[in-house]
Amino acid sequence: MTECKEQALAAKEASRQTALLTTSEKNAALQTVAQEVINREKDILAANDRDIAAGRQNGLSDDLLDRLRLTRERLQSMSEGLQSLADLPDPVAAAPETWTRNDGLVIENRRVPLGVIAMVYEARPNVTVDAAGLCLKAGNAALLRGSSSATRSNEALVAAMRAGLKASGLPETTVQLIDPEKRDSVRELGQMRGLVDVIIPRGGPELIQTVIRQSTVPVIETGVGNCHLYIEKSADRDTATSIAVDAKTDRPSVCNAVETIIADREWTEKYGAELIEALLAAGVTIKGDEQMQKLNSDVQPATADDWATEYLAPTVALGTVSDTAAAIAHVRQYGTSHSEAIVTENGEAASAFQAQIDAASVYHNASTRFTDGAEFGYGAEIGISTQKLHARGPLGLGALTTNKYVVAGRGHVKGAKV
Amino acid sequence: MTECKEQALAAKEASRQTALLTTSEKNAALQTVAQEVINREKDILAANDRDIAAGRQNGLSDDLLDRLRLTRERLQSMSEGLQSLADLPDPVAAAPETWTRNDGLVIENRRVPLGVIAMVYEARPNVTVDAAGLCLKAGNAALLRGSSSATRSNEALVAAMRAGLKASGLPETTVQLIDPEKRDSVRELGQMRGLVDVIIPRGGPELIQTVIRQSTVPVIETGVGNCHLYIEKSADRDTATSIAVDAKTDRPSVCNAVETIIADREWTEKYGAELIEALLAAGVTIKGDEQMQKLNSDVQPATADDWATEYLAPTVALGTVSDTAAAIAHVRQYGTSHSEAIVTENGEAASAFQAQIDAASVYHNASTRFTDGAEFGYGAEIGISTQKLHARGPLGLGALTTNKYVVAGRGHVKGAKV
Repeated sequence: MTECKEQALAAKEASRQTALLTTSEKNAALQTVAQEVINREKDILAANDRDIAAGRQNGLSDDLLDRLRLTRERLQSMSEGLQSLADLPDPVAAAPETWTRNDGLVIENRRVPLGVIAMVYEARPNVTVDAAGLCLKAGNAALLRGSSSATRSNEALVAAMRAGLKASGLPETTVQLIDPEKRDSVRELGQMRGLVDVIIPRGGPELIQTVIRQSTVPVIETGVGNCHLYIEKSADRDTATSIAVDAKTDRPSVCNAVETIIADREWTEKYGAELIEALLAAGVTIKGDEQMQKLNSDVQPATADDWATEYLAPTVALGTVSDTAAAIAHVRQYGTSHSEAIVTENGEAASAFQAQIDAASVYHNASTRFTDGAEFGYGAEIGISTQKLHARGPLGLGALTTNKYVVAGRGHVKGAKV
Repeated sequence: MTECKEQALAAKEASRQTALLTTSEKNAALQTVAQEVINREKDILAANDRDIAAGRQNGLSDDLLDRLRLTRERLQSMSEGLQSLADLPDPVAAAPETWTRNDGLVIENRRVPLGVIAMVYEARPNVTVDAAGLCLKAGNAALLRGSSSATRSNEALVAAMRAGLKASGLPETTVQLIDPEKRDSVRELGQMRGLVDVIIPRGGPELIQTVIRQSTVPVIETGVGNCHLYIEKSADRDTATSIAVDAKTDRPSVCNAVETIIADREWTEKYGAELIEALLAAGVTIKGDEQMQKLNSDVQPATADDWATEYLAPTVALGTVSDTAAAIAHVRQYGTSHSEAIVTENGEAASAFQAQIDAASVYHNASTRFTDGAEFGYGAEIGISTQKLHARGPLGLGALTTNKYVVAGRGHVKGAKV
């Protein structure tokens, strides 16, 4: 048996115990785990230093090194994140939907944990702690497969969390790190249908597509966002400009940032130059279509690829469309069903866009940057689903549960009584 | 482009129209489609006769021929099924969950259709009509891949339904039959992630596993049920016997029938002989463990395989266990997470079994035969899910929908206002 299979079996066993924990037992464990992350600060930061040094040697970019880096403040914030999970409602403690048939059979549709959740993610070590905490709060066991560049940090974080689990009387195998050096472990996790209940990839499109292609375990697709902002003919100039700049520049490296802005032709004639000025002033590189290029010589020509590119950088594709139908067609062609927005003073255009665009979140007169578990009031999120099965949009604790029918009779049979 | 891909693209286009239909438009279409199935009775029965004749020539079993056969009464019942869908609540018309943030941003979590649903199923032509009706009621387009033995029947049924769709002003491509002669079509459907939103196999374990293995499209696993009945020490003799006979014999060929009965040793000493008599009297073949064999010479010896076998026939594996923990361990080892039952007068044993068994439905003092959309009050079902992602148990109309966040602001931005 491979090590990965052994870990999955241990996780299944642990999940049977965590599924039966009371809310207060889980909350107490989260507090203890949060405290252990702080207690072991020295070990964790030292391990992280080794990852950073190795990353430098391996030529990781400054951006990746920054994502990898842990500081006292970041550890504090991870620990506080665990504590705040304790304050959130327990998704499996909600009162079940219950109904009684005329013949007295009582049917209860209960929320229960999913069981074993595998996470496959890239460099950021905070995902290790966030994901483990969310899984535990919902009563699940977690198999965490981070990237090899963060191995030492992840090991130290998991060691701290396991010490907290042990001190709380929970199985340490509730949280396990999968060795990223075993190249086949992602495929192996994805093939353990029946043992692993869901696999959630978080990272770049290549990682996500690999997991989808290789897995028979149900996948929740997260994150790739080629998000659009459509500025309709009647859009208010300041509202459109303000949302465009925010959605592009507030945090360009995340999936809910806008990658393409398409504006109505008439609107562009009137206000396009100002929109371009505002974007340039905010440090945005603009790839524009012909009409946009004419408005400012700093607008670079867009190629066909630009409309399909998730830049994750302060660059935007800027085009014009003739009407709302053309905007919807454009978004349908290039969108990734993540977050799409329309700016308009015309309620009918807003309704049409919001009804006809098939995405996790569709905004009217607001920035796409709000697609986020905390912003939506879920307190925390394990990712943003861009698929339709199970759940779409920011995945809160509820997405880490499933249902179970618990039925009580008094000798009820379906056919004639014998 | 393959025919299958063309059909999927047409289905996506159709689904964009059906997603926007009002409840009354969908209900009117269902009524018209139901009428067309009756209007074309002659054509449909003639087509079915040709399938039956071909099936006989190909040596189909009597059981399969019976599943394949359509009669005036069966058509009537299919048509009534469509009409009754019109009476069910529209799953996408429910009032959305809506909340307003302190800053005035309004977030609405709306139910919307899944989009394009592919069904892959075996011989029974009634699935063609049931599935198409359910998909339409929830606002989806359906791609139906039945078995080649039912092609003529399915073609005639789909032709009738499409005539009804056309008469209702809906795209005929809302319901399309995938040519089962194209052997690769199941794989092709399963690889159209982004175009096909879910693929639902209904049939034997081999069909289901093939679809799971071949698909990147999210799958809903349905139906395989190696269901158990556990008779606990304190179980009432008559209640246990009556449920055992019902769960095994009411309809042995379906997935919610019991395949293994495990009884407490002490209970078996007292009542095992009577249980065996009752099962034999009901025409059941019994494969028993040693203790059961000693009670009646008509009990055949069970082999290791029997505990894992879904007979789908009037045969049962009959074993003994020492206590509830052993029963739970047995069900965990051999169960398929479909329907499991305990008979006991001990509330604690019932609670432990129902909490610790991880299945779609867990019964106390009731037959497993109740796992069914109609019995649970859903009016109709598209299958019984045995997976945890999306939905478990009988899949009603709600399972054919997903959610979408529709957000309205007044120029809301996440960062500082520009």
